[in-house]
Amino acid sequence: MKQYRQHPFPVEDVRRFLEPGPIVLVSTAWRGQRDVMTLGWHMVMGFSPSLWACYLWNENHSFELAKRSRECVINLPTVDIVDTVVRIGNSSGAEIDKFASFGLSTTPGEAVAAPRIRECWASFECRLHDGSQINKHNLFIWEVVRAHVAHRPKTPRTVHYRGDGRFMVSGPDISRKRMFLPEML
Amino acid sequence: MKQYRQHPFPVEDVRRFLEPGPIVLVSTAWRGQRDVMTLGWHMVMGFSPSLWACYLWNENHSFELAKRSRECVINLPTVDIVDTVVRIGNSSGAEIDKFASFGLSTTPGEAVAAPRIRECWASFECRLHDGSQINKHNLFIWEVVRAHVAHRPKTPRTVHYRGDGRFMVSGPDISRKRMFLPEML
Repeated sequence: MKQYRQHPFPVEDVRRFLEPGPIVLVSTAWRGQRDVMTLGWHMVMGFSPSLWACYLWNENHSFELAKRSRECVINLPTVDIVDTVVRIGNSSGAEIDKFASFGLSTTPGEAVAAPRIRECWASFECRLHDGSQINKHNLFIWEVVRAHVAHRPKTPRTVHYRGDGRFMVSGPDISRKRMFLPEML
Repeated sequence: MKQYRQHPFPVEDVRRFLEPGPIVLVSTAWRGQRDVMTLGWHMVMGFSPSLWACYLWNENHSFELAKRSRECVINLPTVDIVDTVVRIGNSSGAEIDKFASFGLSTTPGEAVAAPRIRECWASFECRLHDGSQINKHNLFIWEVVRAHVAHRPKTPRTVHYRGDGRFMVSGPDISRKRMFLPEML
């Protein structure tokens, strides 16, 4: 699989890639264990601090690693590795090391122990911001503390899950910037 | 603007349209006031009950109507009305009635007082499930109690916000159903 060269990116601007709602690969590490999971239930919650929330099913192996380590990396895959994305989502980190099994290369995070995936277009390093809703709602609220994005392609072709094994692939961009109030941009 | 004929749809399946991350129009009503806002910060949180969370900025007029009424309707617009979506997002319901100003037709909700928008491809009626994170995080957790979707087109062309006045328009669907474990579908 192709590896991307990622470059530093402002954390307050990660919404450009997360708000459209792509499937992401969330990686975690804790006490010598590591895991990665496929995730579609997430949302942006703020610019500064750069907040992002996600729902992690509590029977997923990643749930415990995220909860214990209070860290994760959000990796943004593109459509060319959708088969790998599906394999990650249909296997358990309790049984296999998904990174090794699916040929993913990793780079250590700069601010967190969770690994960045080099086959992904972007990686966003996160620390837990508010864990108060984990036990009640499986809801983790994270702060993005480092962001890394590729420069090519300029806009990643992401996949967006519809359920039932179907994905929507991101289409063309359109701009309506001229219609916006300056304070809304 | 074209009006859609919406039909009943199972509430546990609304993820097919919400999980890909589209911009939605959230409508609210409370004591004779009504409003609609453009929203991109939202996520699916469960199938049954059908849970959906969103972040509403607390200076937005809709925030108070949502909080007081404990109801809303999620309306799903398509790319053909993106200019209307932008106008809704760049005006305040404290100053104008956005429905009248932007030529939106409404139908009463079946289970909630908030209006459904007939120019949208789908409408999902919601009741507040958990309001405990409203004051802390501007986070509303809703239960979808009625769903209505159009039959044509079969798949709506939705818009997904990137910030800076730019939208990604939904592209083609691909299936990897044959790669899924039965219990993951």
